Amino acid sequence: MTITLYELAGTDLSRPFSPHCWKTAMALAHKGLDFDRKTVSVTQVPQVEGGVSKTVPVIRDGSRVVADSFLIADYLEETYPDRPSLFGGEGGQAMARFVESWSQSTLHAALNVIALQEIHDRLAPEDQAYFIPSREARLGKSFDEVAALRDAEIAGFSAKLTPLRVMLKSQPWIGGSSPLFADYIVFGALQWVRLVSTARLLEEGDAVTDWFERCLDLHGGLGRSAPAAG
Amino acid sequence: MTITLYELAGTDLSRPFSPHCWKTAMALAHKGLDFDRKTVSVTQVPQVEGGVSKTVPVIRDGSRVVADSFLIADYLEETYPDRPSLFGGEGGQAMARFVESWSQSTLHAALNVIALQEIHDRLAPEDQAYFIPSREARLGKSFDEVAALRDAEIAGFSAKLTPLRVMLKSQPWIGGSSPLFADYIVFGALQWVRLVSTARLLEEGDAVTDWFERCLDLHGGLGRSAPAAG
Repeated sequence: MTITLYELAGTDLSRPFSPHCWKTAMALAHKGLDFDRKTVSVTQVPQVEGGVSKTVPVIRDGSRVVADSFLIADYLEETYPDRPSLFGGEGGQAMARFVESWSQSTLHAALNVIALQEIHDRLAPEDQAYFIPSREARLGKSFDEVAALRDAEIAGFSAKLTPLRVMLKSQPWIGGSSPLFADYIVFGALQWVRLVSTARLLEEGDAVTDWFERCLDLHGGLGRSAPAAG
Repeated sequence: MTITLYELAGTDLSRPFSPHCWKTAMALAHKGLDFDRKTVSVTQVPQVEGGVSKTVPVIRDGSRVVADSFLIADYLEETYPDRPSLFGGEGGQAMARFVESWSQSTLHAALNVIALQEIHDRLAPEDQAYFIPSREARLGKSFDEVAALRDAEIAGFSAKLTPLRVMLKSQPWIGGSSPLFADYIVFGALQWVRLVSTARLLEEGDAVTDWFERCLDLHGGLGRSAPAAG
C-alpha cells in the first residue's frame, strides 16, 4: 500500500522545501517504501488529516497517521524491521537525537536567519500574512533585524559544519559506511537552503559539499529531483 | 586477566587529567573489566609499551597492545561482545564518531584555551619545557595570546553545549536510556577541565550539569574518585 507524505511547499510545488519533510522523504525511500507526496501550504497544515498536528511532515500508512520526522522514522523502523535500518541499532537511534539537536540548534538557527526573506518570498500572500508574525515571534526579531544579521551568518556558516567535516575524515556517512537517518537529518537542513536560497553556503572541494552531493544522488537522485534555487 | 591502562598525569597522580584517557577508563569500567591505571608524564608517553604510540591512552590486554581511545573502544567491543555494549550497534559506533568530532572541534578547542595555563602549572618542569612549544605550535598562538582569549572562551562555553542540552530534553544519555561510549567522549572533555581548572563552566540547574553529575556517579563513582581542582 502506498504511504502518503504530507509536506510543505510554497507557490512552486516542484520545490517542497521543509527540512523536516525531506528527512521523511529520504527515510521512506531508504526503506524502499512507495509513497505519494502531497504538498500543503503553511496555512493548510492545521487541516492535514483532520488536524492531527501543527506541523508537517505527517504520513498516512493505511490506517495509521504519524506526525513529526523523528517519530515517523521510529515508526518506520518498528513497522518495517526487515527493510534497511534507519538507525543501525538502538545506539544509533539514540545518537540520531544528538545529531538532530546539533543540526537544529546550530544549522537551523543560522539558516532561519539566512533564508528568512527568501522563504517568505516563495509563499502565497495568505501564507505570508501568517508567516511574518509567526517567525518574528519565534526568532524574537523583526524581519529587518534578521536581515541585518544575514551576511554575518552566511560568513560564519561553514565553520558550523566543522564537526561533520572532521568526522568525514574517518567515514563517508554519519551512519558509517552507508547513510542512516542521521545523515538525512543534516541533509534536510542543507536541502532546505538549497531549494529556497541563492546564498552559496557550500564550497567546492569541501568534504561536506562532497557528502551533500552524495546525499543528493541517493535513492535515484530523490533530493536532486527538486531544482536548486536559481 | 587485568588490563593495564596507561594514562597521563601531572605532578599530582591523584588527578590523571587526559580527556582521552578518561574515555578509556570509563569504557573499561562499562565493560566490567578489571584494569590497573599506570600514570605517565607528558615526556614519558613515547616510551609506553616500547613506543607504540605518540599519545595515551594505551592499553595492554594480555598480549594485545592498543592505542587511541576510539580504537580501544572498538577493540573492547569486538573482544568482549558479551559484556555491556559501548555502542549499541553499528549505527551507534558510527555516530559516536560524530559525537567525537563535535566534542573535539567545539569543546576541546575552547578548553585548550581555558585550561592551558592551569595544565602547564600541573606539570613537572621537564614536562613544562616540552609542553610550552608543543602547545604553542598546535594552537598557533603564544601562551600570552591564549591567555587574552580565556575570559571570552569561558563566557561562551555554555552556549557550545547547546546541542547536548537540547538532546537531554528527550533522553537522559547520549546513548539513550543508558550511557554509551558517546557519553564518555563528552564526559572526558568536561572531566578534564574539572580536574585541572578552577574555571566554573557548568551552572547549577543546567541539564548538562545534571548529566555530568550522573556521569561522575557511574561505575561506582569512578569519575568522582579524582578530586576536582580547588
